[in-house]
Amino acid sequence: MAEKRTGRIPAAILGATGAVGQTFIWLLKGHPWIELVEVAASERSLGQRYGEAVHWLEGELPGAVAGLTVLPCTPEAVSAPLVFSALDAAAAASIEPEFARAGRTVVTNARNHRMDPDVPLVIPEVNPGHLALIDVQRERRGWEGAMIANGNCSSIVITLALVPLQQRFGIRKLFVTTMQALFGAGYPGVPSLDIAGNVVPYIGGGEEEKIETEILKMLGEMVDDAVKPAKFPMSAQVNRVPVEHGHTACIAVGLERNVSPEEAAEVIASWCSAAEARGLPSAPERPVMVARAIDRPQPRRDAHARGGMTVTVGRMRRDPILDLRLVAAGHNTIRGAAGATLLNAEFLIRSRPRE
Amino acid sequence: MAEKRTGRIPAAILGATGAVGQTFIWLLKGHPWIELVEVAASERSLGQRYGEAVHWLEGELPGAVAGLTVLPCTPEAVSAPLVFSALDAAAAASIEPEFARAGRTVVTNARNHRMDPDVPLVIPEVNPGHLALIDVQRERRGWEGAMIANGNCSSIVITLALVPLQQRFGIRKLFVTTMQALFGAGYPGVPSLDIAGNVVPYIGGGEEEKIETEILKMLGEMVDDAVKPAKFPMSAQVNRVPVEHGHTACIAVGLERNVSPEEAAEVIASWCSAAEARGLPSAPERPVMVARAIDRPQPRRDAHARGGMTVTVGRMRRDPILDLRLVAAGHNTIRGAAGATLLNAEFLIRSRPRE
Amino acid sequence: MAEKRTGRIPAAILGATGAVGQTFIWLLKGHPWIELVEVAASERSLGQRYGEAVHWLEGELPGAVAGLTVLPCTPEAVSAPLVFSALDAAAAASIEPEFARAGRTVVTNARNHRMDPDVPLVIPEVNPGHLALIDVQRERRGWEGAMIANGNCSSIVITLALVPLQQRFGIRKLFVTTMQALFGAGYPGVPSLDIAGNVVPYIGGGEEEKIETEILKMLGEMVDDAVKPAKFPMSAQVNRVPVEHGHTACIAVGLERNVSPEEAAEVIASWCSAAEARGLPSAPERPVMVARAIDRPQPRRDAHARGGMTVTVGRMRRDPILDLRLVAAGHNTIRGAAGATLLNAEFLIRSRPRE
Amino acid sequence: MAEKRTGRIPAAILGATGAVGQTFIWLLKGHPWIELVEVAASERSLGQRYGEAVHWLEGELPGAVAGLTVLPCTPEAVSAPLVFSALDAAAAASIEPEFARAGRTVVTNARNHRMDPDVPLVIPEVNPGHLALIDVQRERRGWEGAMIANGNCSSIVITLALVPLQQRFGIRKLFVTTMQALFGAGYPGVPSLDIAGNVVPYIGGGEEEKIETEILKMLGEMVDDAVKPAKFPMSAQVNRVPVEHGHTACIAVGLERNVSPEEAAEVIASWCSAAEARGLPSAPERPVMVARAIDRPQPRRDAHARGGMTVTVGRMRRDPILDLRLVAAGHNTIRGAAGATLLNAEFLIRSRPRE
Repeated sequence: MAEKRTGRIPAAILGATGAVGQTFIWLLKGHPWIELVEVAASERSLGQRYGEAVHWLEGELPGAVAGLTVLPCTPEAVSAPLVFSALDAAAAASIEPEFARAGRTVVTNARNHRMDPDVPLVIPEVNPGHLALIDVQRERRGWEGAMIANGNCSSIVITLALVPLQQRFGIRKLFVTTMQALFGAGYPGVPSLDIAGNVVPYIGGGEEEKIETEILKMLGEMVDDAVKPAKFPMSAQVNRVPVEHGHTACIAVGLERNVSPEEAAEVIASWCSAAEARGLPSAPERPVMVARAIDRPQPRRDAHARGGMTVTVGRMRRDPILDLRLVAAGHNTIRGAAGATLLNAEFLIRSRPRE
Repeated sequence: MAEKRTGRIPAAILGATGAVGQTFIWLLKGHPWIELVEVAASERSLGQRYGEAVHWLEGELPGAVAGLTVLPCTPEAVSAPLVFSALDAAAAASIEPEFARAGRTVVTNARNHRMDPDVPLVIPEVNPGHLALIDVQRERRGWEGAMIANGNCSSIVITLALVPLQQRFGIRKLFVTTMQALFGAGYPGVPSLDIAGNVVPYIGGGEEEKIETEILKMLGEMVDDAVKPAKFPMSAQVNRVPVEHGHTACIAVGLERNVSPEEAAEVIASWCSAAEARGLPSAPERPVMVARAIDRPQPRRDAHARGGMTVTVGRMRRDPILDLRLVAAGHNTIRGAAGATLLNAEFLIRSRPRE
Repeated sequence: MAEKRTGRIPAAILGATGAVGQTFIWLLKGHPWIELVEVAASERSLGQRYGEAVHWLEGELPGAVAGLTVLPCTPEAVSAPLVFSALDAAAAASIEPEFARAGRTVVTNARNHRMDPDVPLVIPEVNPGHLALIDVQRERRGWEGAMIANGNCSSIVITLALVPLQQRFGIRKLFVTTMQALFGAGYPGVPSLDIAGNVVPYIGGGEEEKIETEILKMLGEMVDDAVKPAKFPMSAQVNRVPVEHGHTACIAVGLERNVSPEEAAEVIASWCSAAEARGLPSAPERPVMVARAIDRPQPRRDAHARGGMTVTVGRMRRDPILDLRLVAAGHNTIRGAAGATLLNAEFLIRSRPRE
Repeated sequence: MAEKRTGRIPAAILGATGAVGQTFIWLLKGHPWIELVEVAASERSLGQRYGEAVHWLEGELPGAVAGLTVLPCTPEAVSAPLVFSALDAAAAASIEPEFARAGRTVVTNARNHRMDPDVPLVIPEVNPGHLALIDVQRERRGWEGAMIANGNCSSIVITLALVPLQQRFGIRKLFVTTMQALFGAGYPGVPSLDIAGNVVPYIGGGEEEKIETEILKMLGEMVDDAVKPAKFPMSAQVNRVPVEHGHTACIAVGLERNVSPEEAAEVIASWCSAAEARGLPSAPERPVMVARAIDRPQPRRDAHARGGMTVTVGRMRRDPILDLRLVAAGHNTIRGAAGATLLNAEFLIRSRPRE
């Protein structure tokens, strides 16, 4: 991707007015490598100034972005070589490939292509090698650009919590129950009458299936030109809870060998992320942290850890059936969405500077 | 227990000012068989009128009860033959046996004696036969009175959800994750700063161990003079969520034979409770109900079903590891505490009218 | 209105799928005078069974209603002589007059015609005499039917709290700040991301103006053929708060003569509603109650008082500028909407049995 | 106050384990002028390491502070010349004067001495001249040290919102209704069962009286050696709402001359704080900001503005009785407590460098 004279790469956001789109905007503020130059959204907002088109959800909208005109989501209207996609699945299906075909680098949070065999589903700290799928993708699809995806918000949080155990001991079996925050549903999202003082044990869009497949792909290995997914059986149940930010997962995990909770905690606490991710602007020093207090992690108190990019793990104890039980919490719109996509973009910029 | 001239049995509440104590009061209002005549509580409230001593949590305090003088929790001060105990564990340890020794019938919600081999842990619809332990208890302890306990709030909700499957197919393995309501922690209970917009993945007092042992005892069988607990391995993880009333449990269950979700739903929906429980004043027509909507049960909407005495089950689907996944929700202070204790009292009154 | 052979008057609900429409349904369940026979709603639901068309918000949907077919909101499709309107303002504007013109009795919760000089805005306990406007209305509009309205949810709660003071001392000046519940915004209503852990100091639809005008009309007097509104200046500020049911109003009121808080409390506590309202099926024994605890009323604890039809008043104290400060809380969808409309219907049935 | 060799003034926190004490800790992290060297608290925590003694409420406890030993609250045990007091009123009564007598500079958030005629109640941007009371204080009390107080959380937010109008037009009359956040009650503070989905129209500790007197003192003028308080009549009603951070105030204000909402907004937006406060490390560029969106300010979205030190004002409109209505929101533990105290300390350090 061509840099501007400022030395920063020009970028656009597709789906810029939604909850994830907004998170991109404040994460990109003052970014050292990337400069936000265009915002695009659905018909409803076209031609308006961004500051008027958006129902801004948190903090202060940066003035420079407020003045941008909302563009249509087409490669003709949007010129930036780097494209962040916060589109919903219906829109992403056709729009994202158009951009990749037109030579753009699409880093996407949308679910559509995550499980495509030639689309890398990447957490740079975990599976940087999967990026090689881009070459397969280009050859197979004839694209000049590329598409790189990140997982679902819960998939990422759980994968980061478990990757140290998987790498060291091997996972044999996995049960997960999530309690997911309101921001995960976007805006307007969940009506307050449905969730105030309530729990809803259902999330649409195939949430459970996404978690059950994406984690296996992300923990998989590159064999020749393909990702061979991890093979352990897993079960995920999901719930919506009245929490603003931060998904929590109660996990029971069986490992290939017997491990004490203390040993597991030590392995997680001392885990080092892949060298390829270290030093990226959005990479936290430690992507997984162990909380020692008996009642942690908690989404309201732990999701924002290290800029929202660190997953907090705690409550490590023996499970009466499998080996271990633990709880993980992470920030769903940062580590689980916009921050994940941004980290992928940074990873790509560093590993393939000429794209 | 001797009836009064009204034909109703006089009863007292121990621990009457707490959250469960208060629930007893409004459940006993207008009860056809039982008349509340005494309230007892800790030192702090002694001698005050109940209406002044209590921080009343919900609805209207019945006028007749407001005027009662708060008595000390001793068999000398309290004369009623039937005693409801809402004592916390520290107080219950010594006080409850004193009452039983003094010839009173103690129906208790406290956790202290639930797992004692000679204390019946009863849900009348599920395991009425366990009541026979009273005879063992008397002989062994030399009591004239008796003590009968109900399980922990979550244990009861989960047991009712699963008993139809256990009776028909046999349970092989069980994973449970709960999301528990604020009322379960009593008053003042959880500080709002800890739980507003948050999830706390920890509940003190050995909550997980209680669930893991009590369910097995309640689903066990009387063999000679003892309860032989059910034998399947189980794992429970608990969470506190910002919900007022109603515990929710996400359940993954393995059965002795392969069962479709539809068949399981049918078995639960058509399950008949034990004949001994039918027609008791507090027994709902159906103690378990199946919700058909894809996003139910929900604690705020389903916990109050049928006076708070019916557990609602839904989200029946195949589990990728075990056979079935489902969600259960029930009212923790009614079906899971005061209502359970009251139902036990009614069951005792009918089955052993001379006690 | 012609009774059915059952002796009950057949009724329809317009706008039956919304939050207020649903409240009508459970208030009408087992009603002694009125029988719900038809439900009507917007295009989207036409022809469906009610049970499928509705996102049912609370408790259990009565089986008989679940099976009704959703009709269009036209006098041709709907045959019942008594029509409850829970339409939103856009729909109510043309639909309600059509029904009245077609000879139906329309009792409405919609805001459109509340301030029309010939539409009675009635709380039967407060201003039953305003019903006489129906004759004016018919003559002026040439209607065979009639339309009778109730006030906005906050207007009703505040009016009931203050009518005893107005009748006894005369109000001189009035400042009100409301904290309004989520159900007041209907469904889907307020997005959870806007209100979870938040206060929104704005409610659309002219909420403040409605309160400032309706209260004066309801506290006004019939002079000849018109209502002469009360004349005191008043100011209302409104807020949305994360409360499920129950609007709360902080009130500062100046009276025509100096009154102590104790005297004011006594006047409110002993106030008798208009004779015309007594004994109506939905009329509570006391429409206003005084809470003595220093921290009451509270919406979650007091809004449901006496079936949701009693407003609770408390915190009576001297105001440093005006004479008195007090707080009122009442159930917004019952006393402030569906229950108010139903009470108006009952009042009409008894006072004008031949309509 | 003597600087350390680092050039920073050593400081201690009294009441360091509570909610305000904790806020001091993270506000002081990396402070350019002040270095936290000691923490003191009540008997319960004495001798423990701070990290063990505290139930840390938000974010991460700085490691350096975690290792400090908790000292008793006496001038013998605590050596720092600058003392931040987050003591509750019962403790502050005797402890604070002891420190001042022992030559320490006490900046306090406690309510005890705010209204003492010789204690400056300061917001540096508003009434810096009141600091002169220190000389009166020393002479009268024979202290070598000094005590300077800040107002109650709501008093400060409301004063900042109104000072531009007071300075330009003069306030004639003031009605305020507050909706106050949970953090204002400290920890454990409000039980969740009291406030979840609820509003409590009462706050203990004389909250309404504090607001009604402190605002007048803060808006008063130094005349000779005393503060002559502002004279307008005012009325405050307070409520607790389920909001984590941020107090909101609905304000109706009468001014000495007729002002349009637009003009008032302009005056507030362009108001300049006192020169004495500008450039202090904790002083925001603008201590009051005007939000233009119709539904702002909102505590969850606006309280954190500019590090929590800026009050946001909005909803400016004509009041039917007085001249103007408006809404203000500000961060109660930062601008309304710890941040206010810290700003006072900075102000003192700059204005009286030799103390």
